[in-house]
Amino acid sequence: MKRIAFLLVGIATVAAIVAFTAAASELTGGEAAPIFGIKIFPGYRDWKLISVAHEEGNLNDLRAILGNDVAIKAYRAGKLPFPDGTVIARIAWTYVPSQENNKVFGRAQSFVPGPPPEWYLQFMVKDSKKYASTGGWGFAQFNKDGRPANEAMHKTCFPCHEPAKASDFVFTHYAP
Amino acid sequence: MKRIAFLLVGIATVAAIVAFTAAASELTGGEAAPIFGIKIFPGYRDWKLISVAHEEGNLNDLRAILGNDVAIKAYRAGKLPFPDGTVIARIAWTYVPSQENNKVFGRAQSFVPGPPPEWYLQFMVKDSKKYASTGGWGFAQFNKDGRPANEAMHKTCFPCHEPAKASDFVFTHYAP
Repeated sequence: MKRIAFLLVGIATVAAIVAFTAAASELTGGEAAPIFGIKIFPGYRDWKLISVAHEEGNLNDLRAILGNDVAIKAYRAGKLPFPDGTVIARIAWTYVPSQENNKVFGRAQSFVPGPPPEWYLQFMVKDSKKYASTGGWGFAQFNKDGRPANEAMHKTCFPCHEPAKASDFVFTHYAP
Repeated sequence: MKRIAFLLVGIATVAAIVAFTAAASELTGGEAAPIFGIKIFPGYRDWKLISVAHEEGNLNDLRAILGNDVAIKAYRAGKLPFPDGTVIARIAWTYVPSQENNKVFGRAQSFVPGPPPEWYLQFMVKDSKKYASTGGWGFAQFNKDGRPANEAMHKTCFPCHEPAKASDFVFTHYAP
């Protein structure tokens, strides 16, 4: 029974990924996010890798954190605060077991990106004048269709990032 | 007691990461891996992201899979088999809890890259003539100091990838 459920989840997952991949290998254009007025940055999916992470709990996702050239340069130089022009992109995918990989390992040990959650894409944009009241950072979240999250959600961004003040309100460290 | 142990692991982890980041933001040069004669590809850390993953069990790592331009183009076009010239890089970091992030979330839910394991860096290189006997792929593994793994280890690469024949011996799918 458990095996069948797993298999069905696996098939549904693969189908959803294939559909999503075919639809969009990168989001572009669309509406600006509320409060900070940030639109999806063209070319973000080609940006260099800062780090990766897994969030358990309600999020239960796998994520990649990418940076534009300004961000990558600052990270590699260990430069804080981040200079104006820094943009950090965070892509999240649901956290799903890989049937293919697990067959090879002989146990359920391999977890890979599944269909995108509502919090699929986020940006942090450094502009110390424009966003002076939120630590110099603007925040934006978009779902897999490029639709921005609502205003209430965007009000939670800075309070959550405030404890990371020592690293210029950024949680992610560079992974060498 | 548990809290102190966590703190010590945290401090040791941060210290190890800082030391490693300072030492090398990217490996270069060094000895070629046995059997396949592959050296570390310059610039691999700047390559575009294919996907991310978490392996539990003995590996217990977080990983990013990057591709050179030939690889990325083939992935995005859904092209199989991968053309000659494709190179896929896999970077793995140990899987550690983030004290900083967990403080904000109020629970141990955030896992991030820690110090590099022995299997830090791997490459798959497509050359259908040169590597005809191993599905057209050459394989290489290096540790954090750029030292290649031994011959016995490299003999295990292709047998492990063989079950993925339907996707040209590559386990990783593109994460949109």
